Amino acid sequence: MDRKYEKHLFICTNQRPEGARVSCGEAHGLALVAAFKKAILHNGLTTEIRTQRTGCMETCEMGPSVVVYPEGIFYGHVQLSDVDEIVSEHLINNRVVERLKLTF
Amino acid sequence: MDRKYEKHLFICTNQRPEGARVSCGEAHGLALVAAFKKAILHNGLTTEIRTQRTGCMETCEMGPSVVVYPEGIFYGHVQLSDVDEIVSEHLINNRVVERLKLTF
Repeated sequence: MDRKYEKHLFICTNQRPEGARVSCGEAHGLALVAAFKKAILHNGLTTEIRTQRTGCMETCEMGPSVVVYPEGIFYGHVQLSDVDEIVSEHLINNRVVERLKLTF
Repeated sequence: MDRKYEKHLFICTNQRPEGARVSCGEAHGLALVAAFKKAILHNGLTTEIRTQRTGCMETCEMGPSVVVYPEGIFYGHVQLSDVDEIVSEHLINNRVVERLKLTF
């Protein structure tokens, strides 16, 4: 196999000090990582799909942010209630979740 | 533009406790992030290319690890002395640095 992961999700967990510029936030980011991991495990896809925390992706104003590679699709304002939809629609069925997609 | 970054590098900064399984290491990972950022800035490519820290990519035994998306090319055993070559060869000229490339 040439590609290690079919889908590789990076979730921002960047936390800025209180009063500074808006940030995605460590607590929310880590909760998203845990929720994605749980959904991916539940679907038996831990070999094909990897999800993990990352630093700032410069989409702070539209955070909490998630990027899915290799497509390079960014999702913004991602809430825990969005995780199942991103997993079932995008990660499993390759259908981008347009309502959360960021455009640049 | 549909794609936010032409190249998006994620560098593992995962640090396990002493005596635990090998890890890429926070100090080395952050030094790599800084070196890549400096080289990318030096080449005037901060809009097109983003580099940032990330968590474990499950390539611990072959770390320190870097992945370049959208290609999904993983590099292993990456040292500070390798940064300029990865930037000039891969990021600028789209030529994979075969001697550091991981295969799966």
